Amino acid sequence: MANKLRQQSICYDVDRDNVTIIDQTRLPHELTYVTLSTLDDACHAIVSMQVRGAPLIGVTAAYGVYLALRENPGKLTEAIARLAATRPTAVNLRWALQRMEQDLAMVSEQEILASALRIAREIEQEDVAICEAIGEQGAQLLKQLWLAKPKGSQVLNVLTHCNAGALAAVDWGTALAVVYKAAEQGVPLHVWVDETRPRNQGAALTCWELGQHGIPHTLVVDNAGGHLMQQGLVDVCVVGSDRTTINGDVCNKIGTYLKALAAFDNDIPFYAALPISTIDFSLEAGVGQIPIEERHGEEVSHITGMDAEGNVRSVRVTPAGVAISNFAFDVTPARLISGIITERGVYAPERAALAPLAQKLN
Amino acid sequence: MANKLRQQSICYDVDRDNVTIIDQTRLPHELTYVTLSTLDDACHAIVSMQVRGAPLIGVTAAYGVYLALRENPGKLTEAIARLAATRPTAVNLRWALQRMEQDLAMVSEQEILASALRIAREIEQEDVAICEAIGEQGAQLLKQLWLAKPKGSQVLNVLTHCNAGALAAVDWGTALAVVYKAAEQGVPLHVWVDETRPRNQGAALTCWELGQHGIPHTLVVDNAGGHLMQQGLVDVCVVGSDRTTINGDVCNKIGTYLKALAAFDNDIPFYAALPISTIDFSLEAGVGQIPIEERHGEEVSHITGMDAEGNVRSVRVTPAGVAISNFAFDVTPARLISGIITERGVYAPERAALAPLAQKLN
Repeated sequence: MANKLRQQSICYDVDRDNVTIIDQTRLPHELTYVTLSTLDDACHAIVSMQVRGAPLIGVTAAYGVYLALRENPGKLTEAIARLAATRPTAVNLRWALQRMEQDLAMVSEQEILASALRIAREIEQEDVAICEAIGEQGAQLLKQLWLAKPKGSQVLNVLTHCNAGALAAVDWGTALAVVYKAAEQGVPLHVWVDETRPRNQGAALTCWELGQHGIPHTLVVDNAGGHLMQQGLVDVCVVGSDRTTINGDVCNKIGTYLKALAAFDNDIPFYAALPISTIDFSLEAGVGQIPIEERHGEEVSHITGMDAEGNVRSVRVTPAGVAISNFAFDVTPARLISGIITERGVYAPERAALAPLAQKLN
Repeated sequence: MANKLRQQSICYDVDRDNVTIIDQTRLPHELTYVTLSTLDDACHAIVSMQVRGAPLIGVTAAYGVYLALRENPGKLTEAIARLAATRPTAVNLRWALQRMEQDLAMVSEQEILASALRIAREIEQEDVAICEAIGEQGAQLLKQLWLAKPKGSQVLNVLTHCNAGALAAVDWGTALAVVYKAAEQGVPLHVWVDETRPRNQGAALTCWELGQHGIPHTLVVDNAGGHLMQQGLVDVCVVGSDRTTINGDVCNKIGTYLKALAAFDNDIPFYAALPISTIDFSLEAGVGQIPIEERHGEEVSHITGMDAEGNVRSVRVTPAGVAISNFAFDVTPARLISGIITERGVYAPERAALAPLAQKLN
């Protein structure tokens, strides 16, 4: 297991027949666990971002179907519809739900509950293996970049945006799996962590996670990456993806596009690391075709942190009542991307390379 | 006067012989004023960013020299040195101090105090006139862009970064002077305001200032601009500058470079609005030549805002003790800039256009 946590980001306990998640809205201040018992719990966990990250919300949705059927074996259609509506951008959610729906369509009513649990657990365990494989594929790239650096270099500097780590998946993560595997293989790494406004997943989750792993890292505001790249302080960018089109456009956390532009302008390789299940083989291009989630403005106006007395509280940083727009994702055009790191290999961001992967998707 | 405030960002009161500033670290939650009585007060106001913005710190430094001489007429050299060391990037600070130093070198010891006050007040009043002229020059551009929009368009969408408004100068501002003057001339405007981490000058100051003026505006995180531009939601970007080189490279608040890249990638005009005193005629190129201020990491880890009970307090958003890098500015290469809006006109970002302006600098 990549992380040093007591458990994965999501975990099924056989003895207690319950699903436990890390409540990511409490990090980095508190490591707390929440038990999901019902469909409502699963939907709430995804909407409120107690769980987030494309792979993890897929797995949570799969368990959500199981929890719904445990409440009422006739609830399959409702469960699929409600879970699918929780978040619009990440395609893994739809992929996991489609897989549940297809596989469950073939089983009898007596078997449906046991089958739902079995498939959800399969998706969970496959995710761990897939993320580990992504890490191994990407680690080869980082190793090559490290070996190509001038003698005397101290570290390979990786910049990442948002959290595409163990917390974004069941374990390992995607972009950070690459970092963890490269570190295991002896590449001396330093990670620049974008704060990732408005929800601060970089500051709160990636810093916390890299700290748990002992990977050297430095937090910067989202505005800083271009300057760091101009100054030669970044060797490679690695990010995750919530949805990737068949031509290689990468939809990821808002702000990814800006970093990709800066990397391109400074001849720095820019990789997206993602499970093949994140590729939407039905979409040609990203801009205008991928639905971009808009979230509540309070995520921008209010910031939660720990005060001097150790209490976690929310403060407003804007004038009261200011108008706010809060798009959660953007699209990085394929032309700015050096390669797509998947569990099967590293591919060029183009149809000829990506289309055949549809056959390799379970 | 552009703003609807009781007074300018900095103001000399003849009757009381004192210098009053708006304490910008308290905005948007409280509009409070601070009296500067000594050199220490002036240095503290600049370092702590009670005053900020290239034009305003120049004027504050000029008054700082007066306050120092009022304490001790022999303190000129010390005052110049201490004020010059307060912040390294903005060139107006150096320009104002050089002007004070040169002009005061010619006056007798009996006259030095009165002369220092007279020159500081001249710099202050010139700044108001210069900023108003910048606004008028830039408003012509916005008017042309508005007239070129398809019939039926509702507004001209301007994106700005940080605060280059009345609060960044004595009055009017630079980038926002352009907005205010265009609005006066009947251009229907909407401003996208970048939050501007880490100090949130956009969220705290620009939103507050535009609200005072009744200019429609929407706050976005710094990550959002690329997406907005891809979606056709931005017609023009206008920012300020802390130092501009003779070849047209623009050093401005960290993150400006990323927005300029996105504007270029989406064929959106990108203007920097600045007084000619912001041009450093001694520098050829920006990257590597302009000193980039690094500030304390606590600006990133801790955020100040108003809690639910109406108390202004600071909260930590990161894990305790995380390593932080906090560069305050970046350099946007001239190739990404459509034009430099000054009080004398709009110029191409190139030596041939900018070098002759050295003659027009007082």
